[in-house]
Amino acid sequence: MARVSQEHLDARRRQILDGAARCFARNGFHATSMQDVLKEVNLSAGAVYRYFSGKDELIAAIVTEVLGGVREAFEEAARHTPPPMPDVLVGLVMTQVLGLGGPGKHGLTWDGEASFPRLMVQVWTETLRDGELSALLREGFGSVRDAWVKVVEGYQEAGVMRADIPAEHVARTLIAAAQGFAAQQALFGTAPAEVLQDGLRALMSVRAPG
Amino acid sequence: MARVSQEHLDARRRQILDGAARCFARNGFHATSMQDVLKEVNLSAGAVYRYFSGKDELIAAIVTEVLGGVREAFEEAARHTPPPMPDVLVGLVMTQVLGLGGPGKHGLTWDGEASFPRLMVQVWTETLRDGELSALLREGFGSVRDAWVKVVEGYQEAGVMRADIPAEHVARTLIAAAQGFAAQQALFGTAPAEVLQDGLRALMSVRAPG
Repeated sequence: MARVSQEHLDARRRQILDGAARCFARNGFHATSMQDVLKEVNLSAGAVYRYFSGKDELIAAIVTEVLGGVREAFEEAARHTPPPMPDVLVGLVMTQVLGLGGPGKHGLTWDGEASFPRLMVQVWTETLRDGELSALLREGFGSVRDAWVKVVEGYQEAGVMRADIPAEHVARTLIAAAQGFAAQQALFGTAPAEVLQDGLRALMSVRAPG
Repeated sequence: MARVSQEHLDARRRQILDGAARCFARNGFHATSMQDVLKEVNLSAGAVYRYFSGKDELIAAIVTEVLGGVREAFEEAARHTPPPMPDVLVGLVMTQVLGLGGPGKHGLTWDGEASFPRLMVQVWTETLRDGELSALLREGFGSVRDAWVKVVEGYQEAGVMRADIPAEHVARTLIAAAQGFAAQQALFGTAPAEVLQDGLRALMSVRAPG
């Protein structure tokens, strides 16, 4: 009997996660059953339960993956020396993160709509009542925030940003802008990352009158 | 028989809405039944159904009220002449909006936690699958965005912000920062509006190197 390759196992896992993410983005966590997921990925219960014990494990795996994607996007963008200005950096990360739901990448699309922002909003709601998910999200947020803090300290040390404001406040604000922009995509339809980038650039141009 | 005063009717309506909002913020829309609401407000079904036909009407009334509160907070803050700089303006609005969930104001608290951010995140998820709610939210977002656009055009005309960037992009970015900051409150616990205000102020201080 042929041994099942790691590659095959990984591909199967990927297929299940993508199908589940499509179901969740479309109908939400509560309205999606394991039966729906089996149907979406066209696999038997035996094949799926070999990888995931149930919906909770699927949700946790998707959240972990998405948070990993966000962190990776950020770290890649921040690797440039000198680090890009805030507007450029947020734009790069946002483009990549929205791309997580784009065609070809993880297959996280549904009826042509990027599903990342929809999934994100649903994860937030789920987090309000799920302690494990909450811990996962808190950890992911913390690591992205810490990465931002380092970049902000870099701006401050280089004298391009005033240094008398806690870097953490700036980090939280930039993440907030990205989070809110993604929420707008979920609620009001897609918009290019340039909108956010433009907005930050305009803010960076503000000069007190007089 | 004594006529029921308008004041009494309004107070009763208020009591029902506050109780429902507490239930929703605590347990979410799906896990809350009309029975839960009746119990929370300590009224009979007859008394409650006289005002609201069911959960959907309660949710719509709460969303309408919260959006009205956000718009009001914004309009009040923008009424100053000249309008405050973006960091100050966002801070004023955010303080007031978070206050919507504060003690004494609409009673939107739950176990001491401000429930506005929790409600907001839940409304977003509900909006993904509810066309009526989606239309309501789109309209509310549109009116806040339009108000911001006017303020941004004011900055641009006064020469305090570069004028070659569409005011709408700046408006969307500032709203995004506020939305994301509120989401962080729901997910990771409360933080003062000054955090966001600091972050915007730091962004406004950015000067390109060289």
